[in-house]
Amino acid sequence: MGRSWWGWGTTEGALSESETAALVGRVQALLPGHDFTDHAPPAPDALDLPEPRVAPPDGLRHLCSADPGDRAGHAHGKAFRDVVRNLEGRLDNVPDLVVRPRAEQDVVDVLEWCTSSGIPVVPYGGGSSVVGGVEPRFDGPAVTLDLARLGQVLEVDPVSRCARIQAGTRGPSLEDQLRGHGLTLRHYPQSFEFSTLGGWLATRAGGHFATLYTHVDDLTESMRVVTPAGVVESLRVPASGAGPSPDRLFLGSEGTLGVITEAWMRLHARPVWRATVSLAFDDFWRAVEATRAIAQAGLLPSNCRLLDATEAFVNAGIPVGGGLLLVGFESADHSVEPWLGRALEIARDHGGSVRAITDAGDGAVRDADGAPYGAPGGAGSETVAPVSGVASGGAPAADGGPGTDPGPASGAGPAARWRSAFLRMPYQRDALARRSMVVETFETACTWDRFESVHASVTAAARQALVDLGLRGVVTCRLTHVYPDGPAPYFGVFAAGTWGSTVQQWDAVKAAVSEAILAGGATITHHHAVGRDHLPWYHRQRPDPFAAALRAAKAELDPAGILNPGVLW
Amino acid sequence: MGRSWWGWGTTEGALSESETAALVGRVQALLPGHDFTDHAPPAPDALDLPEPRVAPPDGLRHLCSADPGDRAGHAHGKAFRDVVRNLEGRLDNVPDLVVRPRAEQDVVDVLEWCTSSGIPVVPYGGGSSVVGGVEPRFDGPAVTLDLARLGQVLEVDPVSRCARIQAGTRGPSLEDQLRGHGLTLRHYPQSFEFSTLGGWLATRAGGHFATLYTHVDDLTESMRVVTPAGVVESLRVPASGAGPSPDRLFLGSEGTLGVITEAWMRLHARPVWRATVSLAFDDFWRAVEATRAIAQAGLLPSNCRLLDATEAFVNAGIPVGGGLLLVGFESADHSVEPWLGRALEIARDHGGSVRAITDAGDGAVRDADGAPYGAPGGAGSETVAPVSGVASGGAPAADGGPGTDPGPASGAGPAARWRSAFLRMPYQRDALARRSMVVETFETACTWDRFESVHASVTAAARQALVDLGLRGVVTCRLTHVYPDGPAPYFGVFAAGTWGSTVQQWDAVKAAVSEAILAGGATITHHHAVGRDHLPWYHRQRPDPFAAALRAAKAELDPAGILNPGVLW
Repeated sequence: MGRSWWGWGTTEGALSESETAALVGRVQALLPGHDFTDHAPPAPDALDLPEPRVAPPDGLRHLCSADPGDRAGHAHGKAFRDVVRNLEGRLDNVPDLVVRPRAEQDVVDVLEWCTSSGIPVVPYGGGSSVVGGVEPRFDGPAVTLDLARLGQVLEVDPVSRCARIQAGTRGPSLEDQLRGHGLTLRHYPQSFEFSTLGGWLATRAGGHFATLYTHVDDLTESMRVVTPAGVVESLRVPASGAGPSPDRLFLGSEGTLGVITEAWMRLHARPVWRATVSLAFDDFWRAVEATRAIAQAGLLPSNCRLLDATEAFVNAGIPVGGGLLLVGFESADHSVEPWLGRALEIARDHGGSVRAITDAGDGAVRDADGAPYGAPGGAGSETVAPVSGVASGGAPAADGGPGTDPGPASGAGPAARWRSAFLRMPYQRDALARRSMVVETFETACTWDRFESVHASVTAAARQALVDLGLRGVVTCRLTHVYPDGPAPYFGVFAAGTWGSTVQQWDAVKAAVSEAILAGGATITHHHAVGRDHLPWYHRQRPDPFAAALRAAKAELDPAGILNPGVLW
Repeated sequence: MGRSWWGWGTTEGALSESETAALVGRVQALLPGHDFTDHAPPAPDALDLPEPRVAPPDGLRHLCSADPGDRAGHAHGKAFRDVVRNLEGRLDNVPDLVVRPRAEQDVVDVLEWCTSSGIPVVPYGGGSSVVGGVEPRFDGPAVTLDLARLGQVLEVDPVSRCARIQAGTRGPSLEDQLRGHGLTLRHYPQSFEFSTLGGWLATRAGGHFATLYTHVDDLTESMRVVTPAGVVESLRVPASGAGPSPDRLFLGSEGTLGVITEAWMRLHARPVWRATVSLAFDDFWRAVEATRAIAQAGLLPSNCRLLDATEAFVNAGIPVGGGLLLVGFESADHSVEPWLGRALEIARDHGGSVRAITDAGDGAVRDADGAPYGAPGGAGSETVAPVSGVASGGAPAADGGPGTDPGPASGAGPAARWRSAFLRMPYQRDALARRSMVVETFETACTWDRFESVHASVTAAARQALVDLGLRGVVTCRLTHVYPDGPAPYFGVFAAGTWGSTVQQWDAVKAAVSEAILAGGATITHHHAVGRDHLPWYHRQRPDPFAAALRAAKAELDPAGILNPGVLW
């Protein structure tokens, strides 16, 4: 399938005419009067890209592409502002070459060439950055180093449940290659289909699990990183106390310190037992209390996502007074009934009422058909408990899903339907972007004691920014990850924008929101990385002496300063 | 109580005559014929320390001590080789001054003075390093910066369950200050009584929990670090994806990059439900399989420690064929019965037989009196389930204890007895060191697939080293922490040494063992840090470009190179 040069995913994956009509109909109900005129993307050949300013040495020529579609497709990430600029044909910075190494030595050779020639290199995984992380937004030539051909699981250790995986491996391929071993990484960012292991590591991605195994950092056993100063290979051990962790220097380095080529990753046995429940609350803050209590109970659910009323309605069509809480557990080893049962107790104690499963009254948790939860699935299969109602029908999961598996579809059941909704969401965003909507998300994390004020100030800042812009729109909130000490709130904006101005309109909202986040003591990003778009606020949050130390480390590893200039510094 | 200048803990805490006689009797049975002559430590005044080579500026004089006992007491850590050198009066490197800041500004001032004067500074928490981390083993003058007076819990956030704690706070004081809030850090390294939060952070200490919450790294929300280049304060959030983690640069920096002055730490509600079971195995490798299965089941026990037969006999007096497995769960929120029940099933499936609790046959886990496990304790109290037999009687816990609480005693019950054994162990080591025994431990971590070979080669190396030295002795092994991808094995050596040579004898064993650890692909330390003693092997395990990057970061933060020279580089 062909990757879309301008938008999410593949060209074949874009919304069909009938899907588009249905989507437009839903949004029209929300924002009547908006001009839904479709603005189609230009053809890449019509972009009139400047000629490449660099030519590769002979030894690297076979890895290089100067094809206009290739170059245009690597000019931006996949944020709303990237997609709209593509639609407008505004490609101010396009890589001169796209280089696709076939082996680690190719990466070494490319960095040598670019170091000696002073050519900036943008490491590129799946290109799904939403923060300008892969955009060569600087003067002079640029080489984009696309790791797509380093896509193999090289080694599996079934005893320690780990695998050595090349950095360019995309989510579905990674899971496909592990499936035969009965193992899974279970790291499902929404970009799963079009992002890579190396990209996840370089950006400290957040995935499927709402607690405990949230960031890819903690799934990482060891890494190999090619830097201009040599290859860094960390020791493959389950834990160490020997000096500062080498891996933690490169996790989050966003291509500025080196190019991650492979990693040993910690895996799980494929889950057999699984159950999810959805609970409605009349009051959002009671729901927040319930969520915090569950997060602090030590139950460690795989899923614990709270949607505010607007979010529940917009994304799932569920009317609730205050909030909808989705809680799920999964295990390859044991029934999850006691875990789910206790989470249910806590939620009920805080005023939650079960929407999707019923308690038969004898303490056992059952689904609507009376079958007990936690029953094992078929031999080796990933059985999703047949939850009726919300959780199986189409609850939102732009951030990784409510405990069900966005992995391979297992038929026409809830999991397949869920997976479909999960994977279609970015395509819907693109369809709305073409129709002058401002549709984007932002996320953060803060401690529980600050959440109420962060929520209030951030929501107010977003709404005020829309008012200042003269735009009608809504701001939604959900909690995508929860920790014992605080949540990671994820906000959505749907606004009726003005064609030709939607990037600036979004940028204004984003700036207002980022100021509110900083003022509230929350992080500028929980799992979308810094890139170039978050840089002004990151600079203000990063302690100065640490910034100086990090820059000194970079000068040692990348003396010519070729690696992803404009990111982190 | 007065700190012992030469050995562990307080002078009042040393073994009584009758305790010593009983200990010597036990070891005599193991190693008959050894010369148990007692070698008493010299008085510090008799050490004839050189005059201090530096004088503080007037503004810092009130914080400084040049008392001989103070200086001698800060010359070494508390490793076997430190204690023996003290007993022999071999203090080759003694700090010229001990400085005790009363506020963070004092730390800033001391670093300014030492930077401008080029005087090395050794940051000092509780002084319990077992790797030469606090020993000024270098030429020229030295100032030891003892943070003991920065010992307050400054702020408690009960909503997010966190506290802001000064770095010099020792374990018992930290827990005392949190108790009124119903909160606990539950980080119990064996050094708990005489080590500090700052020391734990600087050395990436390992504590009480055998799974999940093992290293103090993961309990850390944010930190304040004074460097010669300025103060680093990281953002207080539950998680972030904004660039490489600042905290992870300073965790494990062992006083070389800055002086940690305070940290926000993640806390737990005090546990109410708790249960521990001990299981005997006829075969050590079947017991290892059981341990791995439990570690990979997602049950996340608070305790999961496996002792080999020698370890079980030497430390607990329990005869088992192959191994003794201690598994414990605890919770402030819910009965732990389902968790313990499943762990028991797994252990039994692998041939384990319960020693300390019985299964009543109806699926409920009960103690010997028939009361179900997981019953809540009294209101707010820390009730230890009245386990009969091994787990309550005196199982070994040199590494943090088998699920019971080495915190404040709650009467004369099992917890109090356990706490006593746990805290007495270093005093016993000192009594044996005075009597020419070589008594020391070493630890590592490796993946499960490598454990059998690491265990074999490391044990063989230690035994061969003893043979080469002409010493009789035993080598024991236990697993102190277990991860889904591998264990942290902890080895003990008890050998009949030769007075005047026991340091060299231990060093020879340690060198042989360290070579075997490196050859086996295991880490040179899981939780004892690098210090000066592990340096040669750390150098060989640390990737060279990372070492260069770290050194560049240090040059930025500590341009005069005054901070703990000889550690990490």
